[in-house]
Amino acid sequence: MRNIRLTVAYEGANYHGFQIQRGVNTVQATLESVLARLVPGGPRVTGAGRTDAGVHAWGQVVNFYAGGSVPVERFPVAMNSLLPPDLVVRSAAHARDDFHARYDALRKRYQYLVFNGEVPTPFWRRYALRVGRPLDLQAMRAAAAVLVGTHDFKSFRAAGGKAGSAIRTITRLEVGQHGSFVRFLIEADGFLYKMVRNIVGTLLEIGHGERNAAEMAVILAARNRDLCGRTAPPHGLCLLGVSYEDDPVGEPPGEDAGITPWWDSLDATRRVY
Amino acid sequence: MRNIRLTVAYEGANYHGFQIQRGVNTVQATLESVLARLVPGGPRVTGAGRTDAGVHAWGQVVNFYAGGSVPVERFPVAMNSLLPPDLVVRSAAHARDDFHARYDALRKRYQYLVFNGEVPTPFWRRYALRVGRPLDLQAMRAAAAVLVGTHDFKSFRAAGGKAGSAIRTITRLEVGQHGSFVRFLIEADGFLYKMVRNIVGTLLEIGHGERNAAEMAVILAARNRDLCGRTAPPHGLCLLGVSYEDDPVGEPPGEDAGITPWWDSLDATRRVY
Repeated sequence: MRNIRLTVAYEGANYHGFQIQRGVNTVQATLESVLARLVPGGPRVTGAGRTDAGVHAWGQVVNFYAGGSVPVERFPVAMNSLLPPDLVVRSAAHARDDFHARYDALRKRYQYLVFNGEVPTPFWRRYALRVGRPLDLQAMRAAAAVLVGTHDFKSFRAAGGKAGSAIRTITRLEVGQHGSFVRFLIEADGFLYKMVRNIVGTLLEIGHGERNAAEMAVILAARNRDLCGRTAPPHGLCLLGVSYEDDPVGEPPGEDAGITPWWDSLDATRRVY
Repeated sequence: MRNIRLTVAYEGANYHGFQIQRGVNTVQATLESVLARLVPGGPRVTGAGRTDAGVHAWGQVVNFYAGGSVPVERFPVAMNSLLPPDLVVRSAAHARDDFHARYDALRKRYQYLVFNGEVPTPFWRRYALRVGRPLDLQAMRAAAAVLVGTHDFKSFRAAGGKAGSAIRTITRLEVGQHGSFVRFLIEADGFLYKMVRNIVGTLLEIGHGERNAAEMAVILAARNRDLCGRTAPPHGLCLLGVSYEDDPVGEPPGEDAGITPWWDSLDATRRVY
């Protein structure tokens, strides 16, 4: 059996998240139903990140074990001809026999996109949270810096998440701006349930002046989720990519086809995809 | 009665074009139904360009005569609170008493966006035509240059268009590229029915090598629509803006919230909006 790794992109609106659940449409179920037509036995798919309902992905990584004779390089075209247009296989590659998309992930990278224009735009409403009021970028950056490093992030874990250690290492948390857009770029060795959206929600409250930037250290130290801000809605969030030790395994170019409305800052980070 | 001018943006997918038609949803009907709640008598709206079903707009211009007491600067917020999220009023301004959005338009500018990546992207499927095969930009540019200037464009007028003179002046026709995107930017004093989509369809056939660039001059000279290429689908097309003699009347900034996936080339053209 071959162990095959795919990079997949999807628009989250029509999916109740990545992971299979009875009675609802999920990314995993959609991928598996298509694979069942191409690979004998109908393989189960393992995803790197269990994105929530409504969350997008540009660089979700999955793996599955496949018999059959379809050459690995044929999987993207074969699957895309059967998949709906909001779910796309960007690339396929052979992986090591024991490669596991979730357990082997070293770092995941998300973006949270905010459209901060005075007037709404019809073209970004699915991919960016619209915030009409001005945002204090300096304050948000100061608060974001507090979170970088290894900490117990219990304050940012939503109810419903698994118990267990809440210690994670955020290797990068940037607040970028281009025109009317503000982008939060966050990279860590792992994320707790709704951690990114809780962090962004807290940063936005700081950006609005509802909270002081200095409160972030207090919230973090409290390890109490009652202190953090409101959870930001899912449609601004996108899983950009996942890093593994043996990267690159065949990441395709084409960041420009993702949902970041400018590319300068992506150039500098391309190596991490 | 005040003559009020609006700049409006919309995603075309849910509209049977701009112009009012019985029994279907149109941009004009949607604007008028919202204005009827804000302005006594329910004004009729005149649009600069009658975009077809499925065609987007970033800078459509409309005008209407309004009594009542709503200050002109309140129209965007008041209307946007009532409009669906795929139709947005970007700005409002007083216009001269005799200003007419269609008759007074000096130039209109459209973009036609093509996504030419090897692999589809879920995020641009509503705003860009996906073309998987490579495109010969040099050939398309050579053919595009033939159309610039004052010509009889009868070969590019679709059946169903009004009769009358097909002479128009194209002041600009550029084929730009950025990463996986190809953008056709076309500006003229007026356009015939489906003229942009017929020109783009012909250019794409040249880009694919189905036709030679030199054929463009033959097609143009023939004044026979049977010779032109297939009409490109509507979802790649967007009315970017309309120019008037007394511009700027209050064009807002914010081109970055439109649907062009890069901004460098827009900077140079911003003055024309």
